Amino acid sequence: MVQKGIFITFEGPEGAGKTTVIAELYNRLKAEGRDVLLTREPGGIRIAEKIREIILDNQHQEMDAKTEALLYAAARRQHLTEKVMPALRSGSIVLCDRFVDSSLAYQGRGRGLGIDEVLSINEFAIGDTMPDLTVFFDIDPEIGLARILKNNEREQNRLDKESLDFHNKVYEGYQEIIRRYPNRIVQTDASLSEKQVTENVWEIICTRLM
Amino acid sequence: MVQKGIFITFEGPEGAGKTTVIAELYNRLKAEGRDVLLTREPGGIRIAEKIREIILDNQHQEMDAKTEALLYAAARRQHLTEKVMPALRSGSIVLCDRFVDSSLAYQGRGRGLGIDEVLSINEFAIGDTMPDLTVFFDIDPEIGLARILKNNEREQNRLDKESLDFHNKVYEGYQEIIRRYPNRIVQTDASLSEKQVTENVWEIICTRLM
Repeated sequence: MVQKGIFITFEGPEGAGKTTVIAELYNRLKAEGRDVLLTREPGGIRIAEKIREIILDNQHQEMDAKTEALLYAAARRQHLTEKVMPALRSGSIVLCDRFVDSSLAYQGRGRGLGIDEVLSINEFAIGDTMPDLTVFFDIDPEIGLARILKNNEREQNRLDKESLDFHNKVYEGYQEIIRRYPNRIVQTDASLSEKQVTENVWEIICTRLM
Repeated sequence: MVQKGIFITFEGPEGAGKTTVIAELYNRLKAEGRDVLLTREPGGIRIAEKIREIILDNQHQEMDAKTEALLYAAARRQHLTEKVMPALRSGSIVLCDRFVDSSLAYQGRGRGLGIDEVLSINEFAIGDTMPDLTVFFDIDPEIGLARILKNNEREQNRLDKESLDFHNKVYEGYQEIIRRYPNRIVQTDASLSEKQVTENVWEIICTRLM
């Protein structure tokens, strides 16, 4: 029998504060002596990195929405097979910053391609490797974007530059996805302090999976 | 009502001699005063060219078969929306060297992903823009590969270097696809002389579409 790890993904609008919280979760799990992999697409996988470069290039204004969705699915597939699946097979806890739900929300709803359509190509890409748990960082898109604009250290890419209207659609997409997967996805209030969000997410993980 | 052109694609194993014959067909159609677009993926579309570079890079031996299939679908989508669809909308005859059937044969059967699975992501990519006519250049894969090896001018890419076994599977895949689409796909004997193949394909096109 193959030993099976735990696959946890984190989702939410831009500026929801996922990255900082996930890093703290990683440290806590490590301190408990768990095998943990912290990753995000493209995750240092060279083929996935090259795909990501094409997607986020600010010059590629002519990119069709379906092309974008297929490229995300391709990068996801490569990152999954090279990094996530081997870790899960070896029994690790995998913490992944964004995964399939991002495509459903961003391309499915934000770009208007349809959640079911984008799901179909992602099912091809990920097979049955769905997350065991997904934590959704709930924050008003306008507040999230304001946080990013304040953060001068991070360069804005092609998707950051989309309008507030786009990001509102993405948020609505997430809400629809949460209704579809009520068992897999747990929401957390990301408007609270970083410290409080970390405690809340830690409790979710401990309650649901440990 | 939108004026609708004619979409003709050309398929077959490596070394079947498609390129030379298609160029001659293009010249004949032009000489008749027809609006014709001669293209092949990625067709000079910069996003599609960049995707193609990732696919064919000889260093990318770790590329997963599903990643490859998604990347082909992404490049196809971009080439289709930027180049093929505008030409069809303006009423042109579009001659396209390889299209969706190549993915069904190469990734679906050659890589063993399944023709239906690869068709599903390609349906996402192309929507209802299926070819009006597809000409299959029928040649024994072993003879085709021998032709390529004799041609020193062309550098071998990652797919050329696959084994004869792979190319035999691709050929079987094409045979299955031809059985599925008996109205759309017409076969031509590509072991004949270039001149004879050109005449035969010209007749197919004239009979079926003009």
